[in-house]
Parts: sequence; C-alpha cells; structure tokens
Amino acid sequence: MTMSAEDLRQFEEYAQAVALAVEEELDALLPKPADSDDARLFEAMRYSVFAGGKRVRPLLILAANNIFGGNKKRAIRVAAAMECLHTYSLVHDDMPCMDDDDLRRGKPTCHKKFDEGTALLAGDALQTFAFEILSSADTHPNPAVCAKLVQSFAVGAGPLGMCGGQMIDLIAEQKDADTYDQGALARLQRKKTGALFTACTEAALILNSTSTSDWNRLTTYAKNVGLAFQMVDDILDEIGDAEKMGKAVNKDRERGKATFARILGVDGARRQAEFLVTQAIDQISVYGERAEILKLLARFVVSRSY
Amino acid sequence: MTMSAEDLRQFEEYAQAVALAVEEELDALLPKPADSDDARLFEAMRYSVFAGGKRVRPLLILAANNIFGGNKKRAIRVAAAMECLHTYSLVHDDMPCMDDDDLRRGKPTCHKKFDEGTALLAGDALQTFAFEILSSADTHPNPAVCAKLVQSFAVGAGPLGMCGGQMIDLIAEQKDADTYDQGALARLQRKKTGALFTACTEAALILNSTSTSDWNRLTTYAKNVGLAFQMVDDILDEIGDAEKMGKAVNKDRERGKATFARILGVDGARRQAEFLVTQAIDQISVYGERAEILKLLARFVVSRSY
Repeated sequence: MTMSAEDLRQFEEYAQAVALAVEEELDALLPKPADSDDARLFEAMRYSVFAGGKRVRPLLILAANNIFGGNKKRAIRVAAAMECLHTYSLVHDDMPCMDDDDLRRGKPTCHKKFDEGTALLAGDALQTFAFEILSSADTHPNPAVCAKLVQSFAVGAGPLGMCGGQMIDLIAEQKDADTYDQGALARLQRKKTGALFTACTEAALILNSTSTSDWNRLTTYAKNVGLAFQMVDDILDEIGDAEKMGKAVNKDRERGKATFARILGVDGARRQAEFLVTQAIDQISVYGERAEILKLLARFVVSRSY
Repeated sequence: MTMSAEDLRQFEEYAQAVALAVEEELDALLPKPADSDDARLFEAMRYSVFAGGKRVRPLLILAANNIFGGNKKRAIRVAAAMECLHTYSLVHDDMPCMDDDDLRRGKPTCHKKFDEGTALLAGDALQTFAFEILSSADTHPNPAVCAKLVQSFAVGAGPLGMCGGQMIDLIAEQKDADTYDQGALARLQRKKTGALFTACTEAALILNSTSTSDWNRLTTYAKNVGLAFQMVDDILDEIGDAEKMGKAVNKDRERGKATFARILGVDGARRQAEFLVTQAIDQISVYGERAEILKLLARFVVSRSY
C-alpha cells in the first residue's frame, strides 16, 4: 500500500496545519518559565512537548472531528490535552527504569537533557495538565462533555489501558520472546498503543455524535489503525533509518523482545498492517468525502518510513 | 497545644471510621489482580494505597463536607480519588531519583517491594485513576460538579501546585540551606503540601456551597493547616521516633536541607504551627458544632507524634 505523491502532499499539508495549530495552543496553555525554581519544571514540560513528533493523535482527533463538521477550536484544545498525555508517556517510558533511551526524535530525552527527577516530575505534571485542560469550560461550555472527555482519556491512559499495556510490555522484556504469539502481542499493543488511539476517536464522538453506528465504526477504525501503527513501528525498528527516525533502531531485536516483525517476519507484519488498514478504511467509507483525511491517515500509517 | 484524652478519643474514632470507609471504597474501585501480566501493576497500586497512612486528606474532605451536612457517599468517593493522587505522589517521591527512601509507614517503599519501572507505572496509573473516579457519574450525578472536581484536583496537583512544589523542593536540596528564609520555605510548602490540602476543602465546597465566605473561610483554614502539617513533619524529622513513624528520621538534617525546624528551631517551628492552627480554627468557629471535627483535626495536626 503506497500513497500517490498527490495524496501524500495533501495529507502532509493537513498534518502540518494540525501540528501547527496544536503547538500554538500548547504554547498558549503550558505554564511559562519565569524567575522561580519551578521554571525548570515548565522548561522540561515544554522541551518534551515541543521536541517535534508526528502529532498522529491530534491528527486523528481533528480528522475524526472533520467527519461531523465539528467545532475546530474545541477539537484543537482536546488534541492539545491528548498530546500532553502522549508526551508524558514518552518521557516516563524513556527513563532508565523503563526503556532507557537517550535519544528521541533526534534530541536528548528529557532525563538526559535535564535529570531523572525533573523528567519524572515533568511527566507527572503533563499528565495532570491534560486533565486540567479537558475539565476547563474553555474546552467545552457543556460540563457534561468535559466530564465525558476526562472519563474517556482516563480510561484509555489508566491501569486497564495504556499503563496496563506498559506493565505487560515491561514484563514481556524479561520473558522469552518465543512465549509470545501474535494474539498475545496484539492484546498487549491494544492496551499500550490502541487505548489512546481509541480515546482520540472517542473524543471526536463525544464532541459530536451519540449514534451507536458512528461509535462502532470509528472505534473499530481506531483499534485497527493503532495496531497497524505498532506493527509498522516494529518493522521500522528492524529496517528503519536511525537518522530519519531520530532514535536508535534494532533496540527490540538486541533486547530479544517479542515484536510483530519477529513473529510474523517483516513482510508478514507489513501484510497484516495493510490488511488492518484496509478494514479500517472500509469502516469509514460510508462517510465519503468527509472521511478523506482519516483515510489518508490510515494509509500514511502503513506507508510511512519514520 | 495538647488535646484532652476525650478529644483525642473522639477524633481518632472519627478518623478511623473515615479511613475504613475510604479504604472499602478504594478496594471496590481499584482494579483487581487476575491471571494476566498487568496484575503486577494492580498489585503495586493496591500495595501502596493500602500501606496504611493517616488518611488526613480524606478526613479533611469528610470533615469539611460535614459542615454542610453533605452527602457522605459522594464525599467518600472524592476522598478515595484524593488518596489515589496523594499515594501516587508518595510512590514517585520515594524513588531513587527523588527522595530515595526505602521505607514508608514501616514497609518497603513501592520500588523496593516491586521494582522502579513498576513503581513508576503504579504512580502514573494511580494519578490517572483519580481522575477516572472524579469524572464518573457514580461520584456525582451532575457532570458540572464532576468537571469542577477534576479541575480543582488537577490545578492542586499540577505544575502550578504540587508538582511545582516538588520541583522547587528538588532544587532546594542542591542549594545551600542558608539561602532559604521562612518566606521562601513557606512558598515552597504551600505548593508542595498546601495545594492538595486546599483541593480537599474545595472538594467539599464544590459538593455543597457556592458562598464566597464559605470558600474564603475553608480555603484559609486549609492553607494554614497544610503549612502547620509540614512544620510538624519537619519537627518530627528532627525529634520523632523512627519506629512510631515507620520511616527514617533525621534525613533532612543529614541532607543539609532547609526545613522550618532548622530555620525557626524546633520550639520556634512548633509555636508557628500552633499559631497557624489557632488562626485556622478561628476561621471556622462560625460554623459551631458542625465544624467540631475540623477543629479537632487542626489540633491533631500540631499535637501528633507520628
């Protein structure tokens, strides 16, 4: 599954506009370092949030919001909160007691740039800040919407979602990779990556629709695209270009970790990812033109090289 | 300021009932370990939450709720969320990159009992879980109340509250203690400890009252009691009984850290704490009998020996 140059151009134009809007919102929202000792915390939060990144989750929220012609300003605030949550998970995941990564997006990771204590606090504060944004009347005037957004993101990021997935992943590193089959790995990744992807489309639904069929379609889309995203991550760890990716590659292999690329082979994992994305696109084809960006996003996920 | 045996008995009876109710609620709410790899995360969350502790913050919420004759079941759920937040901050604060403590309440700290990665994730998940509880319709049927509770706790725990205070504290350890005066230390502690104490009384206000004078009275009470609580913590680190406290003492002195006991002397810090508590009690005397437990709580804070 490749993208035509025109499709890729259209997608990247939209993606860049979303990234810019979300980064502007984050810049306006995040505390600004001033002449006090907590300035170091604000600097570390901003360092990690503004270290680049594909902004895939904000894009997912905005593209799903687009299906319903939803209010863009509100969706951008929700996307800013999601990016705080995602960034917190990266900052903590990079720490020595977790993945122990020195480089992220071509720059020193937060605990390398600052120190471990500061990185721990910056991650903590970014998580809290996500919920501060979501619960604010500036995000949505109807507090019922705010409460639902908090609930959805908390369930996605919490013990039964992302944190639980991280725990399973941590234990997986200590286990023999051969004890993992595709099903076990898919269950792990549905929590680790999939839960926040699903929270993204849920956000667009909470903002715009109570229709069960909309919920089913977009949730299936998010689960499939999230899993495909992880499969491509595994493939890129095997065959990706470290420079282009801005982080070390072959780390999973060196650690003897179970990955989709290892279990299915690079080609097998790619075929599986493409199958998931085809199914995802099929789910949303009923929305026609309004789902164009969501379709491009799904195709980008499997064709990306970074 | 000492407490009569009868006052202490009355207070401890109430405190034990609150602790029991909140622990029952937490037991019902927290995910239960089952036969899967994320069970380790749930075990670590439960280990830290049920490691004992004075449950001062839940008590503050229930006692303030009592002034207004508020719904007790709802206040207990909010108190359970607060205890998740407080426990997350302890778990992370005990880690080697922060205070590096091996013992808490007489038991191995979370990263000692499990490992650092698991402690990091357990703290993360406890924070998330607090917001999951608060945003649930089971906590309050009116989503506007839920959104306000999330906002209040997020502001209290976030970069301008507790996390900011922790950052200032982390930097303070590297600074010459003599560069700290009482004012600087009070500013630090108002964020580190005071912000969550204030969120406790705010919770009772959000559940029950929109009166400005109620807000002013209870917020002043919480700020004073929070600061007095920290002063007594500092005193107990100097002269407390390690066995009774269930953790190492004299740690701050050994680290050359600025504390109220060091700046004001043990007697000076005690006098200051008693003055703050007298002012706190004065603020709520207008509520008469209904504020009895809040008054006892304030007096317990300065007379406690653990």
